[in-house]
Amino acid sequence: MTPRIPHTRILGIDPGTNLMGYGLIECDGPDIKVLTVGTLKLSGFESHVVKLREIYLQLQEIIETYLPGVLAIEAPFYGKNVQSMLKLGRAQGVAIAAGITMGLEIVEYSPKKVKQSVTGNGNAAKEQVAAMIIHLLGATAQSDSLDASDALAVAYCHHQHANSVIQSSTLTGKGWKQFIRENPDRIS
Amino acid sequence: MTPRIPHTRILGIDPGTNLMGYGLIECDGPDIKVLTVGTLKLSGFESHVVKLREIYLQLQEIIETYLPGVLAIEAPFYGKNVQSMLKLGRAQGVAIAAGITMGLEIVEYSPKKVKQSVTGNGNAAKEQVAAMIIHLLGATAQSDSLDASDALAVAYCHHQHANSVIQSSTLTGKGWKQFIRENPDRIS
Repeated sequence: MTPRIPHTRILGIDPGTNLMGYGLIECDGPDIKVLTVGTLKLSGFESHVVKLREIYLQLQEIIETYLPGVLAIEAPFYGKNVQSMLKLGRAQGVAIAAGITMGLEIVEYSPKKVKQSVTGNGNAAKEQVAAMIIHLLGATAQSDSLDASDALAVAYCHHQHANSVIQSSTLTGKGWKQFIRENPDRIS
Repeated sequence: MTPRIPHTRILGIDPGTNLMGYGLIECDGPDIKVLTVGTLKLSGFESHVVKLREIYLQLQEIIETYLPGVLAIEAPFYGKNVQSMLKLGRAQGVAIAAGITMGLEIVEYSPKKVKQSVTGNGNAAKEQVAAMIIHLLGATAQSDSLDASDALAVAYCHHQHANSVIQSSTLTGKGWKQFIRENPDRIS
């Protein structure tokens, strides 16, 4: 599947089960503009399924509004307990599906890789990432939560790694092994 | 949102990361007909994201073909380790999103509830569930895997519990608390 628009707009998301940060950047060579940044608040819903529906519908609306070509997701692979990880996984799955429906390329980065990319230190605190994101992207990167800053950070991280336009055929299987060999840090 | 067709067709799924069982039944009062049953094999794909895309697209195709009103999912809440639960959660999330996109009501049942509903024993073995499903639904319930039998079982379980037509408003928040009070066994 060919993305409908070039990969100059990147939607970053930092998925959680109570807060989901999102940040959308437009990249024109070295110039990066923040188009939108914010946080989906998910703690008020009466059930997990309603929450998942909300994540899906709100992300779909953001994608329809800004038409990004890539969805970059921060994907932790470790957590405290299996039940919270299952719920986190479902939230991520729904978010990824919103991207798949709209034909976006899906990429994922570990939190460590995102921090490394933004601050130069893979163990940086979330506050340091947020401060650096404002330094790098300007006042419009100011957000309402650290999750939103993290979402911009993962979008920025993808921009840093996507020096060449990556064909979305990498995500349909063709050339995937070669892609992994060439981009080991793109896989969490 | 009002479902597009009455809740007489139920798609059951038993999601895993390597095999995803699906089974679709049509209920006309006490008569139950198996429309399709099978297993999505997901171990051959080169990456987790490609696998998620495959789950999404294949379930979407099944939904478009048979137009069920309900997606019933078997949802274990415990597993061996956090990484496998995150992956399982993603697979479930993508499957749920396929249902959301198509306007289906989403319901979930614990494995124990499904086994109880089909065999009368919440601790029944998968083989017992499979045998009982063929006994209850006839030869067309014969499937290629225990995951597929489990998927039919979760659809059957929902049929057993859906004595009255449940408005999908329960999943948009309206009346949800009351619904939980009245249907405690519908929540895993």
